[in-house]
Amino acid sequence: MNVTVRGQTRHYRTVTFDAKRNAVLLIEQRLLPHRFEIVATRGFRETAAAIHDMIVRGAGAIGATAAYGLAQGAHAFRGCDLAKFSRHVEQVCATLKAARPTAVDPVNAMNDVRRVMRRGKSVEEQQFIALAAAEEFANEDVRHCEAIGGHGAKLIRNGMRVLTHCNAGWLAFVDVGTATAPMYAAHAAGKKFHVFCDETRPRSQGATLTAWELAQQGISHEIIADNAAGHFMQRGEIDLVIVGSDRTLGHTGEVANKIGTYTKAVLAKRHGIPFYVAIPLSTIDWKLKSGFDIPIEERHESEVLGAWGVVTNPKSEIRNSKSDRPSYVRVANPTSGARNPGFDVTPAELITGIITPVGIFKPQELWRRRRGLGFCG
Amino acid sequence: MNVTVRGQTRHYRTVTFDAKRNAVLLIEQRLLPHRFEIVATRGFRETAAAIHDMIVRGAGAIGATAAYGLAQGAHAFRGCDLAKFSRHVEQVCATLKAARPTAVDPVNAMNDVRRVMRRGKSVEEQQFIALAAAEEFANEDVRHCEAIGGHGAKLIRNGMRVLTHCNAGWLAFVDVGTATAPMYAAHAAGKKFHVFCDETRPRSQGATLTAWELAQQGISHEIIADNAAGHFMQRGEIDLVIVGSDRTLGHTGEVANKIGTYTKAVLAKRHGIPFYVAIPLSTIDWKLKSGFDIPIEERHESEVLGAWGVVTNPKSEIRNSKSDRPSYVRVANPTSGARNPGFDVTPAELITGIITPVGIFKPQELWRRRRGLGFCG
Repeated sequence: MNVTVRGQTRHYRTVTFDAKRNAVLLIEQRLLPHRFEIVATRGFRETAAAIHDMIVRGAGAIGATAAYGLAQGAHAFRGCDLAKFSRHVEQVCATLKAARPTAVDPVNAMNDVRRVMRRGKSVEEQQFIALAAAEEFANEDVRHCEAIGGHGAKLIRNGMRVLTHCNAGWLAFVDVGTATAPMYAAHAAGKKFHVFCDETRPRSQGATLTAWELAQQGISHEIIADNAAGHFMQRGEIDLVIVGSDRTLGHTGEVANKIGTYTKAVLAKRHGIPFYVAIPLSTIDWKLKSGFDIPIEERHESEVLGAWGVVTNPKSEIRNSKSDRPSYVRVANPTSGARNPGFDVTPAELITGIITPVGIFKPQELWRRRRGLGFCG
Repeated sequence: MNVTVRGQTRHYRTVTFDAKRNAVLLIEQRLLPHRFEIVATRGFRETAAAIHDMIVRGAGAIGATAAYGLAQGAHAFRGCDLAKFSRHVEQVCATLKAARPTAVDPVNAMNDVRRVMRRGKSVEEQQFIALAAAEEFANEDVRHCEAIGGHGAKLIRNGMRVLTHCNAGWLAFVDVGTATAPMYAAHAAGKKFHVFCDETRPRSQGATLTAWELAQQGISHEIIADNAAGHFMQRGEIDLVIVGSDRTLGHTGEVANKIGTYTKAVLAKRHGIPFYVAIPLSTIDWKLKSGFDIPIEERHESEVLGAWGVVTNPKSEIRNSKSDRPSYVRVANPTSGARNPGFDVTPAELITGIITPVGIFKPQELWRRRRGLGFCG
């Protein structure tokens, strides 16, 4: 999507590849929204470190980063011994996988790349195919998000007030995003609407990343505390909710997403407000039979006990002149601890529809439509 | 309640009076939870400034502070001309009222004090009565909170997990608090239970003040993001909700309280979890006929866009050695704005009971019981 830096507007993907330098180019997400910077990793180990250190995060984005990292690692190999090359590629994949051991996207992405690489008859050919396959992986991610946007944009009418939670935006993918895709498509079609971004404590991805994305595209928006959506719904000021998903169960239509999603779904149901979940097909889990079996990661309590931000004056809003790097502040009582579940599970009955690249479906329909949704079991 | 400073445990009220120094003593709440400090105001103008600057906040606490401030102002008068004294008292009241012009508690408290003062036949007698009446106002606030605790403690059984939102604790009153009163009474009776404190963005009174209060009393507790309560309810980890109220409508039983209260009530209803509101009788509004007529203050957007905390290392949790005064950090995207409603309204159908100093009632019963609840209309 577009980013404006010092008055210049340019299109950026979250992840791209610079073949001349054999470098993966990443938007440094840890500095956002305070500073926009592109990081170039100069080897697959640096790429793995970028995944591990969360310079890049989000399902589609880390998938594409791993795919490019594999191509980058393959290109660094010198020689023409295919057996040695295979062992080297093995090691590259292991390094990239270990960067986020619980994430499935890097593994799926690298498996995709390796499957087509094997068609190459020489090291050089395999190196060439690896990069082409990584590019194809990234491009497919973009096409899927664009398709979600095409279907979802129909839900947004002029004058609507749309609520979103967390960041399922282009920063979490290669471009366009999922929950944001309908907004970008509707905006491109000239529709006028307003977005409420849930702050999304404890990591504040709504206030930082989603708000930054929408501001860069010039979409009307305001940040609200996670506590405030219920009040706005009660007063008739929210017309539509669109969120993303980390995992959607093909059997039940249950959706695991950022903590607080369930609460928004309960509120939307009470107020008769349509609640949609935008997903790429890769996040559908065709195995699990119950949302209660989805493991809910408990993250470090420091996220709840404090916040990351740039020290500033709340009245003047002039940022600290010395640094725009965020600091951690302890907000909470220093002798208290916290619980910090990262995700929650929203049952199908609260979800109006699932926006996929191939259309919008009732969550209860997923299993019946599993062939069309890419289930190969 | 008890506060432990450098290993010494002592009982403190939020507001007291030092007759020798003619000073109001206040817990400096803006430094909590990072530092515990008692501030002595040396004149009614300083007391008014303390109310204005939020050194003291909360319905009961600012009521008692104004009552003491009036006595303090009266005592500063030199001479025996009753007419001049009355004009002076008039000015003291006006100054204290102007410190928080929309708050009703300081006005009610000062009216109470002035009514009994008039019985005094001399300046000296009126000065004496003013202080006695202010003390009585403060003591009555404590007795009411203790009575709330007595009734509410019956709701808390051994092993329960209790959720609270914001701070309706002893820091908001002279002592004991309202939503916390049942917890303190149950704890004193030897019951074992656990409290989840909602962080309560954007001002984080749950993470700062309520967590600090509970820690000082040695009550088991954990802070959670406002987003997390729905998840814990879904997993059966919350048994009871108790919150406070800024205004409760006698006609309808609707409750205005800190933003996010409504959301918790909706979630509790869905999960069949009892939802109680603890209130002093003074916060019942016998006039308004609909919760939609309650004006909802929109506070400054900087509260949503950032946070106040002490710069520290999130891993070591060692506080900054140079300072434990909190700084403001901008968390959100610098080019985005925010909406910041301070309160929301919870309908009676979501409320299991209202805990008052004279018993626990269904919200729909308030009007029928209005005589016993202090309605003099």
